[in-house]
Amino acid sequence: MLDGAAQDLLFREARTANSFSSEPVADEVLQAIYELIKWGPTSMNQQPLRVFLVKSQEARDRLLPYLEEFNRPKTESAPVVAILAADLDFHEELPKLFPHFPQAKDVVFADPELREWSGSQNAWLQIGYFIMGVRAAGLCAGPMVGFDAEGVNKEFFGDGKHKALVVCNIGKPGENPWYPRLPRLEYDEVFIEV
Amino acid sequence: MLDGAAQDLLFREARTANSFSSEPVADEVLQAIYELIKWGPTSMNQQPLRVFLVKSQEARDRLLPYLEEFNRPKTESAPVVAILAADLDFHEELPKLFPHFPQAKDVVFADPELREWSGSQNAWLQIGYFIMGVRAAGLCAGPMVGFDAEGVNKEFFGDGKHKALVVCNIGKPGENPWYPRLPRLEYDEVFIEV
Repeated sequence: MLDGAAQDLLFREARTANSFSSEPVADEVLQAIYELIKWGPTSMNQQPLRVFLVKSQEARDRLLPYLEEFNRPKTESAPVVAILAADLDFHEELPKLFPHFPQAKDVVFADPELREWSGSQNAWLQIGYFIMGVRAAGLCAGPMVGFDAEGVNKEFFGDGKHKALVVCNIGKPGENPWYPRLPRLEYDEVFIEV
Repeated sequence: MLDGAAQDLLFREARTANSFSSEPVADEVLQAIYELIKWGPTSMNQQPLRVFLVKSQEARDRLLPYLEEFNRPKTESAPVVAILAADLDFHEELPKLFPHFPQAKDVVFADPELREWSGSQNAWLQIGYFIMGVRAAGLCAGPMVGFDAEGVNKEFFGDGKHKALVVCNIGKPGENPWYPRLPRLEYDEVFIEV
């Protein structure tokens, strides 16, 4: 079983940060996050999540106009920002990732609409792992959906083959980083025996 | 930072189980899983995931015909099976869950199509937390998308207000529980600086 300190770190004490300190996030830390979360399962091992890292001021200036205004100060303060996107051509990797059924690329995933459906779902699943991975590294995540996804897709992925789902600020918490904790549903409102 | 044993438990050594022992899963364990994962963040705190627990033989017999044949033996062997679904009327809870903006229920989420989109995405995110929570309890998860979701919706949720996304077997591993580990993408294939 997971020990209490780890439960606190990932779930009970972890919070969505809304401001960040200027302490940088080293590339080694980002790599360590990936080396953990890459093991999380996906359907047919498709691994559609791509993490576009916004670190330079230039990249940040390209991203900020697409965020809802109330989200901009958070992203301005975060040392690293990740655009979490689904790769809609994830099937190209299947001969490598699902080697006992390499035909899956063409037999199962020829249809772009099906790929968008499957890739988006599995990327959302991986975003759950990603948030846990950021917390596992002792950092705070600030995931946001308040942004113009179409605009971000055009600005950063002109190829039409990537779909932005979440923009996630990453770093150590800054001043007044938390909103009050919001209520959660009760166990028997969520877990229901049939 | 998360210690190595916890990293192993949740990510590195954790595997999708394909067979299960007959050891039962106590209700207290299911409750402990929820008490952890309920803290995972969702957009506007909407918490759309509902977990329908299949434990009795009668409930299992209703579920099995909707699974792909190759998935049925796994579900037959698991002591508990969860139908992980999005509640498409999650907005009804927002006055309680997002109390500083109770109008969100009607102002933001009046449109059923938008609710299906937002509720499905956030439920997938919570499924990521759910899989981590099952592993945190020292159990194996066996998430599957190979089933007739429309059929499950009609059989279990006649109201049209719930959408099944994943069927997840839960328990201790049985005999020959693992397939060989599948390859993962490299760090620089997934994390890309813009």
